[in-house]
Amino acid sequence: MSCRYWSPFVKDIVPYTPGEQPKVTNLVKLNTNENAYGVSPRVFEALKQTINDNLRLYPDPEATQLCQALANLHQVNKENIFVGNGSDEVLGLAFYTFLKQDTPTLFPDITYSFYPVYCELFDIPYVQIPLDEEFRVNLNDYNREASAIVLANPNAPTSIALDYETIENWVKTHPQQLIIIDEAYVDFGGQTVIPLIQKYPNVLVIRTFSKFYALAGLRVGYAVGHADLIEGLRRVKDSFNSYPLDRLAQAGALAAINDIQWSIDHAKRIIANREKMTNALKALGFKVLESSANFVFAMHPDFSGETLAKTLRQENIIVRHFNKPRIQNWLRITVGTEEECQALLKVFQKICAK
Amino acid sequence: MSCRYWSPFVKDIVPYTPGEQPKVTNLVKLNTNENAYGVSPRVFEALKQTINDNLRLYPDPEATQLCQALANLHQVNKENIFVGNGSDEVLGLAFYTFLKQDTPTLFPDITYSFYPVYCELFDIPYVQIPLDEEFRVNLNDYNREASAIVLANPNAPTSIALDYETIENWVKTHPQQLIIIDEAYVDFGGQTVIPLIQKYPNVLVIRTFSKFYALAGLRVGYAVGHADLIEGLRRVKDSFNSYPLDRLAQAGALAAINDIQWSIDHAKRIIANREKMTNALKALGFKVLESSANFVFAMHPDFSGETLAKTLRQENIIVRHFNKPRIQNWLRITVGTEEECQALLKVFQKICAK
Repeated sequence: MSCRYWSPFVKDIVPYTPGEQPKVTNLVKLNTNENAYGVSPRVFEALKQTINDNLRLYPDPEATQLCQALANLHQVNKENIFVGNGSDEVLGLAFYTFLKQDTPTLFPDITYSFYPVYCELFDIPYVQIPLDEEFRVNLNDYNREASAIVLANPNAPTSIALDYETIENWVKTHPQQLIIIDEAYVDFGGQTVIPLIQKYPNVLVIRTFSKFYALAGLRVGYAVGHADLIEGLRRVKDSFNSYPLDRLAQAGALAAINDIQWSIDHAKRIIANREKMTNALKALGFKVLESSANFVFAMHPDFSGETLAKTLRQENIIVRHFNKPRIQNWLRITVGTEEECQALLKVFQKICAK
Repeated sequence: MSCRYWSPFVKDIVPYTPGEQPKVTNLVKLNTNENAYGVSPRVFEALKQTINDNLRLYPDPEATQLCQALANLHQVNKENIFVGNGSDEVLGLAFYTFLKQDTPTLFPDITYSFYPVYCELFDIPYVQIPLDEEFRVNLNDYNREASAIVLANPNAPTSIALDYETIENWVKTHPQQLIIIDEAYVDFGGQTVIPLIQKYPNVLVIRTFSKFYALAGLRVGYAVGHADLIEGLRRVKDSFNSYPLDRLAQAGALAAINDIQWSIDHAKRIIANREKMTNALKALGFKVLESSANFVFAMHPDFSGETLAKTLRQENIIVRHFNKPRIQNWLRITVGTEEECQALLKVFQKICAK
């Protein structure tokens, strides 16, 4: 469709489709990689204390306290931190701030499917580089003219991580290129490259509170990088929306950092559940990629991805199935609680027993 | 400054400067047009009920309940409503969705100073049309080639409103143009043009929860228009950030609508304070424009705007002074509580008595 009042580009864009947020509540929801465990009680307490008449006042547009806490956490300066309304907004602003160049940005063919959407939205040239046959990022394939590379690490939906040294070698040998590393899932077994920002001005790390901190409902994300990169983001953000983080989101995120042990403990449980679930899936004949995230990417040689997803859905379990080339027989399954993993495995056992 | 990794446009943009959000608390804060009165207790209650483990889950990306409540309030369909992270985000998305055209967008030379910033950010051609000598919008001055017109109504910082018939006549006779009406302040004495959206596909009304509902700290804004306009906004939003409204913001805004009488009662008090303050200022020799907003725009022939603002600041009262052509001797003063208005007038009485 089109409309005479739309800017011409609008008729051609194909928006990102987020995972379903079902309105019924009796589902085992393993489709959008939320944290299986709950929110820190200290976050609840901080939110409650923020519910007062100060809500009539604008929030701090610079989210000073939150930025300072993130700086302390990552042992960088406040000038190295940029916060936004979820890592999706931070990524969107980063794409516009840095990637609107004559030469293309490179990212994998199978990765977070929002990346090409941002490029279409902002008319950014891009090339998708195929993952290798084992769904791995092979940086040798990226040796071509480019302004920037964007990598989710661990990658989604494949769950596989690149290691620190591999990324550092690339960053060091490609000073003319910006490298954006999207570390949404890094706290479940990956290696963060945040320390690289101290040495290299061409690496920007993007993070979220939606996974490790179990605060997807609060919409907080951030970027860590050289002060000049952060200044660019700040300019674009302040030309679009001065106050993307409301008072509650700022207070809740701050409290989550201050109770980081809560999140570390739950990440450990999720990792333990993941290893158990991976072994059980393999025992049923599934192929499961090596995950460093709070989800696994799995396929069964005897059943299509569509069949598996539909059968799970009939049993009130939802997982994410991407009807796309190369991965149409794979499922991205969030690692749930012990009980949720059991429920999933029970259905798969039934299917495989047939 | 510049940086080699920035997109070329970034070095040239000049971000919007929001009004100061001071960190000290003993100030009479009349600089950012927040609501002088507090938040509805029903909003507090709704927020408290939203503080639970569901915060680990993503919010409804379509904010269905909130959109339905807004549709009911304005007697339109849900398909006529678009919500975003404050009206600033809604405006930013609207500028990109509709105004990136070959022919320019028109808006007044003195109006919300974010409009030209959006244009620079998105490379949108624009022409600023001077307000008349009495700081009024004269639509005859807009009879020139244009894709769209953007009007704040009441205008800011001038506080003056256009009436319904004047806008309808323009909308009706310019079907080829989109008209965006920014009604941030309409509930303090202006006339909304939302009913026009039923008859005309070329009018988009933008609203905020920051003023009338006293929820600037929660960041919620919305647009009302023909379903095709809303679909355009949805496409662009879903290509940028799927979930701009967190769970608390959605719940709080919904509760504010459900307790609208609270906001109506406080708007009446603000209007009464405004009339009293306007009369008192005039008695001191100020020129005060006729306000339909929760602020007044005033100047004194014997004192510069800078002098007045500085003297107030020394007395711990902050107002907004724009150091810009035509208005450098004017102050934009938020209408405060009875006590805040008295405090302001006391300082002005001292100044004028000298």
